[in-house]
Amino acid sequence: MFKVGILGATGMVGQKFVQLLSRHPWFKVTTLMASERRIGKIYGEEVDWIVSSDVPKDVFDVEMTPMDPKNCDADIVFSALPSNVAREVEPRFAREGFVVASNASAFRMEDDVPLVIPEVNPDHLSLIDVQRVRRGWDGFIVTNPNCTAIMLTISLKPLMDIGLRSVRVATMQALSGAGYPGVPSLAIIDNIIPFIRGEEEKVEVEPLKILGKLENDRVVPADIDISASCHRVPVIDGHLEAVWVKFDRKVEIEDAVEAFKSLKPLDLPTSPESVIVVRSEIDRPQPRFDRDEGDGMSVVVGRIKKVGDNEIRYLVLGHNTVRGAAGASILNAELMIKEGYIQK
Amino acid sequence: MFKVGILGATGMVGQKFVQLLSRHPWFKVTTLMASERRIGKIYGEEVDWIVSSDVPKDVFDVEMTPMDPKNCDADIVFSALPSNVAREVEPRFAREGFVVASNASAFRMEDDVPLVIPEVNPDHLSLIDVQRVRRGWDGFIVTNPNCTAIMLTISLKPLMDIGLRSVRVATMQALSGAGYPGVPSLAIIDNIIPFIRGEEEKVEVEPLKILGKLENDRVVPADIDISASCHRVPVIDGHLEAVWVKFDRKVEIEDAVEAFKSLKPLDLPTSPESVIVVRSEIDRPQPRFDRDEGDGMSVVVGRIKKVGDNEIRYLVLGHNTVRGAAGASILNAELMIKEGYIQK
Amino acid sequence: MFKVGILGATGMVGQKFVQLLSRHPWFKVTTLMASERRIGKIYGEEVDWIVSSDVPKDVFDVEMTPMDPKNCDADIVFSALPSNVAREVEPRFAREGFVVASNASAFRMEDDVPLVIPEVNPDHLSLIDVQRVRRGWDGFIVTNPNCTAIMLTISLKPLMDIGLRSVRVATMQALSGAGYPGVPSLAIIDNIIPFIRGEEEKVEVEPLKILGKLENDRVVPADIDISASCHRVPVIDGHLEAVWVKFDRKVEIEDAVEAFKSLKPLDLPTSPESVIVVRSEIDRPQPRFDRDEGDGMSVVVGRIKKVGDNEIRYLVLGHNTVRGAAGASILNAELMIKEGYIQK
Amino acid sequence: MFKVGILGATGMVGQKFVQLLSRHPWFKVTTLMASERRIGKIYGEEVDWIVSSDVPKDVFDVEMTPMDPKNCDADIVFSALPSNVAREVEPRFAREGFVVASNASAFRMEDDVPLVIPEVNPDHLSLIDVQRVRRGWDGFIVTNPNCTAIMLTISLKPLMDIGLRSVRVATMQALSGAGYPGVPSLAIIDNIIPFIRGEEEKVEVEPLKILGKLENDRVVPADIDISASCHRVPVIDGHLEAVWVKFDRKVEIEDAVEAFKSLKPLDLPTSPESVIVVRSEIDRPQPRFDRDEGDGMSVVVGRIKKVGDNEIRYLVLGHNTVRGAAGASILNAELMIKEGYIQK
Repeated sequence: MFKVGILGATGMVGQKFVQLLSRHPWFKVTTLMASERRIGKIYGEEVDWIVSSDVPKDVFDVEMTPMDPKNCDADIVFSALPSNVAREVEPRFAREGFVVASNASAFRMEDDVPLVIPEVNPDHLSLIDVQRVRRGWDGFIVTNPNCTAIMLTISLKPLMDIGLRSVRVATMQALSGAGYPGVPSLAIIDNIIPFIRGEEEKVEVEPLKILGKLENDRVVPADIDISASCHRVPVIDGHLEAVWVKFDRKVEIEDAVEAFKSLKPLDLPTSPESVIVVRSEIDRPQPRFDRDEGDGMSVVVGRIKKVGDNEIRYLVLGHNTVRGAAGASILNAELMIKEGYIQK
Repeated sequence: MFKVGILGATGMVGQKFVQLLSRHPWFKVTTLMASERRIGKIYGEEVDWIVSSDVPKDVFDVEMTPMDPKNCDADIVFSALPSNVAREVEPRFAREGFVVASNASAFRMEDDVPLVIPEVNPDHLSLIDVQRVRRGWDGFIVTNPNCTAIMLTISLKPLMDIGLRSVRVATMQALSGAGYPGVPSLAIIDNIIPFIRGEEEKVEVEPLKILGKLENDRVVPADIDISASCHRVPVIDGHLEAVWVKFDRKVEIEDAVEAFKSLKPLDLPTSPESVIVVRSEIDRPQPRFDRDEGDGMSVVVGRIKKVGDNEIRYLVLGHNTVRGAAGASILNAELMIKEGYIQK
Repeated sequence: MFKVGILGATGMVGQKFVQLLSRHPWFKVTTLMASERRIGKIYGEEVDWIVSSDVPKDVFDVEMTPMDPKNCDADIVFSALPSNVAREVEPRFAREGFVVASNASAFRMEDDVPLVIPEVNPDHLSLIDVQRVRRGWDGFIVTNPNCTAIMLTISLKPLMDIGLRSVRVATMQALSGAGYPGVPSLAIIDNIIPFIRGEEEKVEVEPLKILGKLENDRVVPADIDISASCHRVPVIDGHLEAVWVKFDRKVEIEDAVEAFKSLKPLDLPTSPESVIVVRSEIDRPQPRFDRDEGDGMSVVVGRIKKVGDNEIRYLVLGHNTVRGAAGASILNAELMIKEGYIQK
Repeated sequence: MFKVGILGATGMVGQKFVQLLSRHPWFKVTTLMASERRIGKIYGEEVDWIVSSDVPKDVFDVEMTPMDPKNCDADIVFSALPSNVAREVEPRFAREGFVVASNASAFRMEDDVPLVIPEVNPDHLSLIDVQRVRRGWDGFIVTNPNCTAIMLTISLKPLMDIGLRSVRVATMQALSGAGYPGVPSLAIIDNIIPFIRGEEEKVEVEPLKILGKLENDRVVPADIDISASCHRVPVIDGHLEAVWVKFDRKVEIEDAVEAFKSLKPLDLPTSPESVIVVRSEIDRPQPRFDRDEGDGMSVVVGRIKKVGDNEIRYLVLGHNTVRGAAGASILNAELMIKEGYIQK
């Protein structure tokens, strides 16, 4: 078992880390790190636990500690920090030799930081060596993409070989993506909020890096053009995205279906049986019924339609705090172990 | 005052007709027509009134009558019938000399039937003469578009002069659009249903006719290309649409704003002060806060962004059962009166 | 394995039977019976499956058959029929030798029909013999209570020994209790419907029979006085009830807590580890977080407060379609097997 | 016109004050006071306006000022402060000669502070004189009850003469009662929170003072016994309460109906035509359809049922931020003007 610490353990994504890791075959949570005012407090008493009925028993009594590498007894540190805090805290851990698997956006777009979805661009992990050399760190930071970008990019990956050129995506995003307390109920019941700060920019940029090619120790971004319109809807978990994709050649629905189904799962504990599940019903995927597919790690695609000779549209859905956040970081850590980037 | 009858008075749109007409300066409801099993029953006792606190007092005691032209004491008949029923019933009224202002989809796409949004294509009313001659009817049928198509088309109209070429639209549609009882609560709470039967087809086709040019007694469809992805969300009223539009030339945000604001209201009782309200906040329009703009007859546009040289995206929202249904038919009737198509 | 049939397999409770039975250690679903218009159709294709992501694979392809004892290859028949249909259909099966474990209300209050919650009044099963003799049936009908009455009665049972005299209960009931399609979304979003037809009467009467004593082959109702006010709330699953109970003697909170915890689970597959879970947090039980306690078979009590010398109040919550419906019938069947009332 | 200031103008109740006062015939808002960090900022730019589409134009540009009597140009000050702040700030204003009409709970239960519902206990205003003498203040504080207590007490007042003895009330309270941002959407969608801090205590105590008799310059509390169980539900506005009331004599439904209808409105601008509206439908009142009755100032009663010889139960609903908060304070101020307690 690898010992793991969690940075930002009381927030929505932090809770999801705690939940997923409490039953993980390779990882054992040893350290829960939180902000100043929570240090010394008992996790189970302090946290506003919102992701299930009860705080897992094995971490309930853990006393929260400062975000300080010196006190952190762990092989890997998972980060659920807000971006501005992550920018300061994560390097401290990497410098002191920790592997930081981060869900924060702070370092995602840095040249020497891998932005990885294991089934999509595992080879980008080789940036780790570049990073350690350039920064002189004993450890390193590896990041996963924004929740909305993850679902989208997983669905775009198999389309790259068909000659993908441009993407238009309108999202209907779940409330848990805004953290806790997050969106006030008065703002969202019988309503939609058609704006999520910083989200469209991330969805338009991150996939280009993930789908890019590694050349001479850096990533050359994919040559596609993405435009995103992001909206918050009254749904607890599960981001749904309506996607139009254009290609540089003629495309048929069957080509896309075949491509989607061809994306192979990895032999890792958190990897789902099917990376992309393609549903053929006229009214799926739906957040409440499909977000838990593959224990929340599968992405579900449906309603694939032909728009023009070179264009199709489809829907893609994924569990935003599992495949889109905590589960993404954990899968990255599993991949790094398998690839030998982490030793005990 | 013109006497008006309502076909299908107990459904969701029928109720909205009743509500809007009960305080209308030109119209007085005289006849409420319903299906077989409701004939002879008192409207206020029989209807599952859902659009406000109480059935308006002036129509509460009206006894419902059959959908038969013989018993209909009215100058104008508003139709809130389902399409399959409308196909049979509406011609009977037109034949007998009634003006039928219909919200049903049955005849929208017929060559000699005007599909009209008064501020967009009032000239298409001249098809009325074609229709009467060709069909040998004393009366005639005039239709308004599908609710989702109306908001979209109103926003597209002012963009036509900039050289509009293609449209991609993802919708987030309110529950009232599905009628009553409509969408089961168990199907939509904490969920989205990404499919609305027949909707995408209507949104892709109807605007082409409305934005088309009248030539030799028929409409030549606009030469634009529309693709729609339609989704039902847990919102009571108000359809929100995320729209990408491409032009045959370079376009700036200011061009679009100016165009949106240039669409002029008509001097009619139901016409709003502003046809399109452009909001500049980062997070508007929102269904709950903007659907009642202009008493539900304005369309609200926001979040206009530049996507590429020739492309912008924006949001458009409108009240689906007012501007998108009952209010649309009523505005059409008002226009026909003003234009002399209806006399007492 | 006992072979089981389900009457009314496509409704909300029918689906829950299918779901719970598809992974049951003692039962195997062999026959799905439905109304006329569904006969011959494939269950998985025909049902509007709403209780989880997908119809269980083992029953997907089952062809639905008529509600006719002759074609029913089963040892036990579970009934999820509406009351008026149950009144006609269930006796036909009992007459032909079937054990009918019914969730319908049709026969609950008949003198010779057991109305049973296994942990509360297992001895009432002896009415089976009375029933068979009196009616001359080879089989028999056993019923479980109304969903709201079940949670309440489970919580009242341990209070009987403290001298329970009267009960005032206000309920906040989930949408799934109204079946499918059930409550229209337009009627319940941003709203409460403070009326459920027939519900208050059932909640006021059924507990008296369940808590009554068996004397000379009939049940003498418990001498307590219940008044219920029932309300539908926008919650998917889980009935929450606010209860005031008065006693004929002085009572302390501790007495109630101790009594609640003393109710013993049975050694049956569907029986939960704790029949009543008492939570001490200030804001529990909550439907979304507590309805799945004990796989939906536990009842959760909380916020126990002293009101006066002889009166306390508390909250009780349970999963209305598991402990309150399908799970209740299944637990009854398990008890009947254990007690020897059913043989293969 | 009286000049009025608002303490705590940016919160939920503060916004409701702004909204209701912006169209008030007697009052003109001159001063908006807010906490430290908001001083000097423009109200319309700073407030998270949530109670309607837009900040009323006449107050949009008002610059917020400190909560300091010296800078307050007003005849009356309405207070929407949290209780702990009110305890400190309100006396400062009263001391300097201001009339403080407060919605805060801080001083409600003080012996010399009127806790008033104009239609229920207008005579309690005479405590104003006691207060001024005892405290040596030039101005004074008058309070209105807690939102839940107001609806309940209005319904109890007419029952007092029938011999009311005890009350059991279960509430289903709207989200706006928790302020803004208030209840997180993640906590309440598909859920109920059966706890509201301090609420049950207020509902159990405040009505006793309001329904009490003024004797020798103080209020002798009414001799009734109230127990309340309070629950938060996913409803935007409108508190619904299920009430059981016991009397010291036999009571019939008709007695209650007659009593409810007998409560007379006052001749004041904010007073509704009917204080209590009694509905006879089986499923009313409902929050979404009845909260705006009498522009939110009426209380709606329904489902009156006989429970025993001396007991009935019923439902009562009211708009919690209008009749239950801002409207209550405004009505109090109107009454004080009419009674001569406020001069310009």
